[in-house]
Amino acid sequence: MKIEEIKQEDLDIHAFIEEKSKEISTTVGEGIAINALSGGVDSSAVTMLAHLALGDRLKTYFIENGIMRQDEPRRVVEIFENLGVKVELVDARNEFFDAMKGITDPEEKRQAITDTFYENLFSKIVKNSNARYLLQGTNYTDVEETVAGIKRQHNILEQLGIDTEQMYGYKVLEPIIQLRKPAIRFLAKALGLPEEIYTRPPFPGPALAARVIGEVTPERVEIVRAATKIVEDALHTSGAFQYLAILHEDRVTGIIDGKREFGMQIEVRCWESTDAVTGSPTNLSFDVLQELSENITREIPGVVSVTYNVSRKPPSTIEAV
Amino acid sequence: MKIEEIKQEDLDIHAFIEEKSKEISTTVGEGIAINALSGGVDSSAVTMLAHLALGDRLKTYFIENGIMRQDEPRRVVEIFENLGVKVELVDARNEFFDAMKGITDPEEKRQAITDTFYENLFSKIVKNSNARYLLQGTNYTDVEETVAGIKRQHNILEQLGIDTEQMYGYKVLEPIIQLRKPAIRFLAKALGLPEEIYTRPPFPGPALAARVIGEVTPERVEIVRAATKIVEDALHTSGAFQYLAILHEDRVTGIIDGKREFGMQIEVRCWESTDAVTGSPTNLSFDVLQELSENITREIPGVVSVTYNVSRKPPSTIEAV
Repeated sequence: MKIEEIKQEDLDIHAFIEEKSKEISTTVGEGIAINALSGGVDSSAVTMLAHLALGDRLKTYFIENGIMRQDEPRRVVEIFENLGVKVELVDARNEFFDAMKGITDPEEKRQAITDTFYENLFSKIVKNSNARYLLQGTNYTDVEETVAGIKRQHNILEQLGIDTEQMYGYKVLEPIIQLRKPAIRFLAKALGLPEEIYTRPPFPGPALAARVIGEVTPERVEIVRAATKIVEDALHTSGAFQYLAILHEDRVTGIIDGKREFGMQIEVRCWESTDAVTGSPTNLSFDVLQELSENITREIPGVVSVTYNVSRKPPSTIEAV
Repeated sequence: MKIEEIKQEDLDIHAFIEEKSKEISTTVGEGIAINALSGGVDSSAVTMLAHLALGDRLKTYFIENGIMRQDEPRRVVEIFENLGVKVELVDARNEFFDAMKGITDPEEKRQAITDTFYENLFSKIVKNSNARYLLQGTNYTDVEETVAGIKRQHNILEQLGIDTEQMYGYKVLEPIIQLRKPAIRFLAKALGLPEEIYTRPPFPGPALAARVIGEVTPERVEIVRAATKIVEDALHTSGAFQYLAILHEDRVTGIIDGKREFGMQIEVRCWESTDAVTGSPTNLSFDVLQELSENITREIPGVVSVTYNVSRKPPSTIEAV
């Protein structure tokens, strides 16, 4: 099946919402559908679309995998509760950290997260719920990049020829697969989601595990989570497409309390992009960069230096892992 | 023995040159002195001072350790030959790469280079030459940092209580130990060295091995050497104190020929400093940074992204290893 993009300028937003809700309710019928909400703009828009279509027959789960941003699980559940959408929070931190133990290869890391999510957790949740439909926030950029081999999206099994109904016991619905990020933000706003959600920078499927080079441990996630908070607080008014902090595995020499120490390094990236397919680094002022460095090295013990990525995509990618 | 700094403003350059040459010739007497020239401003100034004092009784060696900058060995020998100073080039590339094989720890790496230089190579050269005096370019910043434990300089054995005469068979003379970089540049110019030498950015003792995180192999040195050339060509007119390229061991995702690949990353640092004790990153224009990134990723196969370090020293250090 060839998927055609709907560009934001061609999008009749109210017609789109009506059509997709109808599609969802026709497909699911009197049954139950299930979805996982991450709090990103894609899964948030899908949750609202499906909520419009199915009401209480939609079961939305927020899986706390231990690799989310600071305070994110609590805050996302709260936002949706304020909109009348019940979200069940599942604490699966141990399962994810156990699955990632000892893994340093980025592809294996993504795979461990995908497998833990689908095979160990979500397929059980789906089975217990008797839902036969799973809603996912796959978007048009995911399709293109998966086909091109740039990325192995965790939510695009069908495009890779994986029959989810046979393999996991449910059918996948992807209502926003024809849209790219700007159109999805527009949709999220039209669906009544708050600005905090529809302006939220993209966040990768493997969450903060994608921002840790080397082994993902609770301690290392805590470091990159603190750096992410500093970067997001500093850059959320920058108008940039995406901004992130990466914890390197390489140690670099620094000075801590007057002594030479091999410390940690945080890499900051901030992207200008419309579709994540290509991107260029944001021309942040030198003052902003130095302040970021000072805040990160002061607030996170053991971090001795901060770099800013100045490469375009390609040859870089948005994320490092 | 307490070493006192002579600040550039207090330096009577002609008196200093006369005094140091006299000291050298009085100490060495009718004997032979030996020194190793790296082409940096410190060892170049010492070579010229000792040449003035000793003429042909100075034996100067350039040890090609395989971790020098592009074309450096040939070029340095040529510059000194033009000044009437004979320099013997010793090809010790295999000895150094053998000594560094498998080593990733920065301290062990520095140690392997020091040991190869002193114990395996230079002590033999000194023995064969019958020289009893070794001239070294130790400077005041080295003294301070070694005492503070920030750095373990390879040329400051005596300050660490190591008796070189007993251990290696020669006595060490350090004629510029009271000077910091600006004063040494001023001295080098007064000694008739060309601008290419007296404006040369500082280069660490372990040379490009200090710019490779992880194992130092001929292939990895070749990569950082190419990046160093691009950075030096772009920044030698910047007026900065020092600028360098670092090859990371961490792999990051990138796109090479349209395919997802785990590529290499180069970190660029450019410092404002007067004495290397403290430093701040240079406010390079965003255009310069992007051009550096484009040149590095285009010219060096396998490099997918470039970062710029935005931290001060402290908590960073000038070099990463």
